[in-house]
Amino acid sequence: MSEIVLGHNQYGKAENRVVRIYRDTPRHEIHDVNVSSCLRGDFSDAHLTGDQANVLTTDAQKQTAYSFAKEVGLEKIEDYALALARHYVGDVDAIDEARIEIDEYAWERVIVDGAEHDHTWVRKGQEVRTAAVTVNADGEWVVGGLKEFVILKSTGSEFAGFYKDKYTVLEPTHDRVMATSLTAQWRFTHTDGIDWDEVYAGIKVQLVKQFAVVQSKALQQTLYKMGKAVLEAYPVIAEVRLSAPNKHHFVYDLAPFGVENNKEVFHADDRPYGLIQTTVTRDDATPPGPAWDAYQGWLS
Amino acid sequence: MSEIVLGHNQYGKAENRVVRIYRDTPRHEIHDVNVSSCLRGDFSDAHLTGDQANVLTTDAQKQTAYSFAKEVGLEKIEDYALALARHYVGDVDAIDEARIEIDEYAWERVIVDGAEHDHTWVRKGQEVRTAAVTVNADGEWVVGGLKEFVILKSTGSEFAGFYKDKYTVLEPTHDRVMATSLTAQWRFTHTDGIDWDEVYAGIKVQLVKQFAVVQSKALQQTLYKMGKAVLEAYPVIAEVRLSAPNKHHFVYDLAPFGVENNKEVFHADDRPYGLIQTTVTRDDATPPGPAWDAYQGWLS
Amino acid sequence: MSEIVLGHNQYGKAENRVVRIYRDTPRHEIHDVNVSSCLRGDFSDAHLTGDQANVLTTDAQKQTAYSFAKEVGLEKIEDYALALARHYVGDVDAIDEARIEIDEYAWERVIVDGAEHDHTWVRKGQEVRTAAVTVNADGEWVVGGLKEFVILKSTGSEFAGFYKDKYTVLEPTHDRVMATSLTAQWRFTHTDGIDWDEVYAGIKVQLVKQFAVVQSKALQQTLYKMGKAVLEAYPVIAEVRLSAPNKHHFVYDLAPFGVENNKEVFHADDRPYGLIQTTVTRDDATPPGPAWDAYQGWLS
Amino acid sequence: MSEIVLGHNQYGKAENRVVRIYRDTPRHEIHDVNVSSCLRGDFSDAHLTGDQANVLTTDAQKQTAYSFAKEVGLEKIEDYALALARHYVGDVDAIDEARIEIDEYAWERVIVDGAEHDHTWVRKGQEVRTAAVTVNADGEWVVGGLKEFVILKSTGSEFAGFYKDKYTVLEPTHDRVMATSLTAQWRFTHTDGIDWDEVYAGIKVQLVKQFAVVQSKALQQTLYKMGKAVLEAYPVIAEVRLSAPNKHHFVYDLAPFGVENNKEVFHADDRPYGLIQTTVTRDDATPPGPAWDAYQGWLS
Repeated sequence: MSEIVLGHNQYGKAENRVVRIYRDTPRHEIHDVNVSSCLRGDFSDAHLTGDQANVLTTDAQKQTAYSFAKEVGLEKIEDYALALARHYVGDVDAIDEARIEIDEYAWERVIVDGAEHDHTWVRKGQEVRTAAVTVNADGEWVVGGLKEFVILKSTGSEFAGFYKDKYTVLEPTHDRVMATSLTAQWRFTHTDGIDWDEVYAGIKVQLVKQFAVVQSKALQQTLYKMGKAVLEAYPVIAEVRLSAPNKHHFVYDLAPFGVENNKEVFHADDRPYGLIQTTVTRDDATPPGPAWDAYQGWLS
Repeated sequence: MSEIVLGHNQYGKAENRVVRIYRDTPRHEIHDVNVSSCLRGDFSDAHLTGDQANVLTTDAQKQTAYSFAKEVGLEKIEDYALALARHYVGDVDAIDEARIEIDEYAWERVIVDGAEHDHTWVRKGQEVRTAAVTVNADGEWVVGGLKEFVILKSTGSEFAGFYKDKYTVLEPTHDRVMATSLTAQWRFTHTDGIDWDEVYAGIKVQLVKQFAVVQSKALQQTLYKMGKAVLEAYPVIAEVRLSAPNKHHFVYDLAPFGVENNKEVFHADDRPYGLIQTTVTRDDATPPGPAWDAYQGWLS
Repeated sequence: MSEIVLGHNQYGKAENRVVRIYRDTPRHEIHDVNVSSCLRGDFSDAHLTGDQANVLTTDAQKQTAYSFAKEVGLEKIEDYALALARHYVGDVDAIDEARIEIDEYAWERVIVDGAEHDHTWVRKGQEVRTAAVTVNADGEWVVGGLKEFVILKSTGSEFAGFYKDKYTVLEPTHDRVMATSLTAQWRFTHTDGIDWDEVYAGIKVQLVKQFAVVQSKALQQTLYKMGKAVLEAYPVIAEVRLSAPNKHHFVYDLAPFGVENNKEVFHADDRPYGLIQTTVTRDDATPPGPAWDAYQGWLS
Repeated sequence: MSEIVLGHNQYGKAENRVVRIYRDTPRHEIHDVNVSSCLRGDFSDAHLTGDQANVLTTDAQKQTAYSFAKEVGLEKIEDYALALARHYVGDVDAIDEARIEIDEYAWERVIVDGAEHDHTWVRKGQEVRTAAVTVNADGEWVVGGLKEFVILKSTGSEFAGFYKDKYTVLEPTHDRVMATSLTAQWRFTHTDGIDWDEVYAGIKVQLVKQFAVVQSKALQQTLYKMGKAVLEAYPVIAEVRLSAPNKHHFVYDLAPFGVENNKEVFHADDRPYGLIQTTVTRDDATPPGPAWDAYQGWLS
């Protein structure tokens, strides 16, 4: 007869809302993150008998997240995450692997009387920058990314020549609005000597450019070209993953009212939506290891 | 014995997600709104007997919202809303008063190879611009506004000298983070000949400046100065209303770990939050009429 | 020239998440609320000069909300809210009027081996019960209510005979799905000697019954009958306000696939939606005073 | 030099909001789901050249989801999902594998005058029932589940004897509130002849019972016992995965006010929260194949 056993398990403290102000000069700096830490190791006793002797409390993880914002600083989320992950694996016996997932919210300085203000910002509100860092005895992995990056083009997008089955009633089009709220994640080949901010900004430029300039025959094609451009521009990236809801903008039928609508008035629909997901990688990419083993999204 | 009667009632179509593209030249323009229309009049029969003879359907209101985006255009939300409201009051007998409430989402052109792109944008993501327009036989009222305007200052804010009762355990402070997600609404004295975009941009400048430069003794004081600055700069504004959650940023206690935290590391808390609401007006302001009679927030 | 003056203002602590467990016997009881307190009075100094001498801190209001859950108990949200409001008006000089707004989340005991468990519950998840209490020197007002009460009937609803304008393309129907997420609020004529729980349960029965049994010619008619039934059943209620989004369920067109759809398959659409708002009252209802002066929804 | 290649990709139509009414007798039945379909196969051309010849449109998938609600019916979400997945793999050449993910919202009949009503329901609002079905040439996999199942116990939970590091300031406790919003997913060993509703109801009973009756030394222990009980009761289940945020209820400090708080008044905190994730399986469980290869949560 089969025996019941403990399988994959992990735990941590999710969504610590850490805000770090640098105030060494009158011109302050702000970093605003949502950080989750996840620990993996042999936690059988905690599950089987309730013995917590090996369990670093999630409360301690919270304290650590806040304390490290001062102890090691919080300037680049990737460095801060690496420091946290190395600490857990290096300093706590029971922990074999640590994963740190971070969302960063950008702020921009307000302008007062034509000059940037020293200590006032508005939340930028555009995309959320993300990082997922995993550390174990075998190595370190960093996945950079962004999400909630809402981008739209009002022409330069087609959809035609598709497969037709019994349920296919869609009309082909050679000019449509294409819009998405992009999630993109890119795996770094290594973690040393990287200018995280430069790479982030540069990848965003590539993603935007491809979305804009490609005469798109499908969201799949656009996503592939976005990923390809990133890999061509950044040898330090091994693999790019993209998830893109097709935020449908339907041309509104104004004919009943005698009003011409030459792709000028649209209904931005909520649901359902196409959802296109694509990986672009190198044929000789290093193995991903645990780079993609999620914490927050483990069960979705 | 008392008789049961119909009281205040109103109805309409809420949250039409209208997107308008101007594509007369290769350089397209985009306007992206969420528009709700609300009708008031004598709809007793609809309630008492179910007779719909006077009821303009909410579906027709939807059609109208989309069609007007082409027929009258959708460049300034205030003008578009006025056109809709005047149409309902003017063209449909049973309607005595119409209210149009609009949220506008801003987009900014992407930069490709150093130049603004003709037909690609990212959603700006910052504050939502709002308008609420009411029209009846007696006049027209426009309330402009913004919401979800998240602003933070890392110093220049105090809170001390407050009333103390048995439940007062808070320590006074002369240097704290102050942050809010501002909702502001301003009532115009009239509706003709106003450059809506210029006023909107200018009011935002005033709100930001006061938030930044005032050495704040309380959020109340900052809000009052914000409203006052708007009224001083814009004679066309009769009244400003402000609602500001105090998004608490608590200094994190790192002393147990021997780490100094001189207002550098904060926990951004979710709930509860202070909520400060203030009106700044003129002593000779014209009466508001139905300007503040809400649709979406009628029951909250 | 006009002078700039302070208008209506109010402040408080919003969304205190208080959970009260009664554990005097092994069979525990739970009450789970989200409570906001709002204070009104002469707070000119706080706005004009920043002087906080009259200001009871929002932190103190938080402490009070939690402490009163023990000191006066938290069994009926109406009684708890009245106690809080009376305390503020009675015990703090500067406060002329206090308003307490509460959402209550219901829990139901789990069944284990056929019996109700003593100390384990699942969140009921259905409607949220609400109360809004206002107290000043002139009196006390209680508004009870519910929200997020999602109810649907699959037949017994018509919509026909409506007004037709140029934009009316909707087809009349004599059999449709009708669904809403109801918000209802009812104002009590007085505040003494009322069995709050009995009235709440009874009103819910009335609302449900009318929604179910009325052959509806419009949501307006159904709402009116709901309000009327409440007033007929409960002399203690002076006025009922109802806000009902028409959650459209569109019959899905399966004809292109040769599949008959006799109102069996629907698309539950998100936006836009009709939004119907109605008041039912007595011709001799006592004046509402500040009963409907909202805190959380003041600017919407 | 490395070559850039297409990696894992998938696409579909997400969040079709299908509502199915059975109305063959006066006593109607309702099924309300949110269904997403995801297709996998060789879609290289769509990505590399934009050629859509192999691509079944996401619009066709939408049509199919609605049409199958009538053609095959929508009574058990697992059967409906299997029918959809088999159709895609069986009827469309390019598709090698299909995954259908469904959320089901439960409704309960209202009671009118003591009797269940024939065609009116309120949304139950409790947990969401889920199913994820994967079909390819090698087999079929069903994962059942639930989410947003909010459960709380007011005693019978301890947390003590844990590992202590420099950042551990938490006090041990032998009596605390334990609450979570549970996500659970269970993999079936096969897909034929299963009474899906009976298994669902039975597993829920097991989960609830263990949560209630176990004197918990940690959420890990409770989760393990929940998973173990499911596996013991249902040989048809190969593996259970559980994800449980620890919804912290902090005892509120009322000592400053001279008020005793013997675990009677709590603050229900939002963030951060512990997040515990556990798998319980059989030592001889069949391999999972693609059963856990997510669509909606692929990038999180």
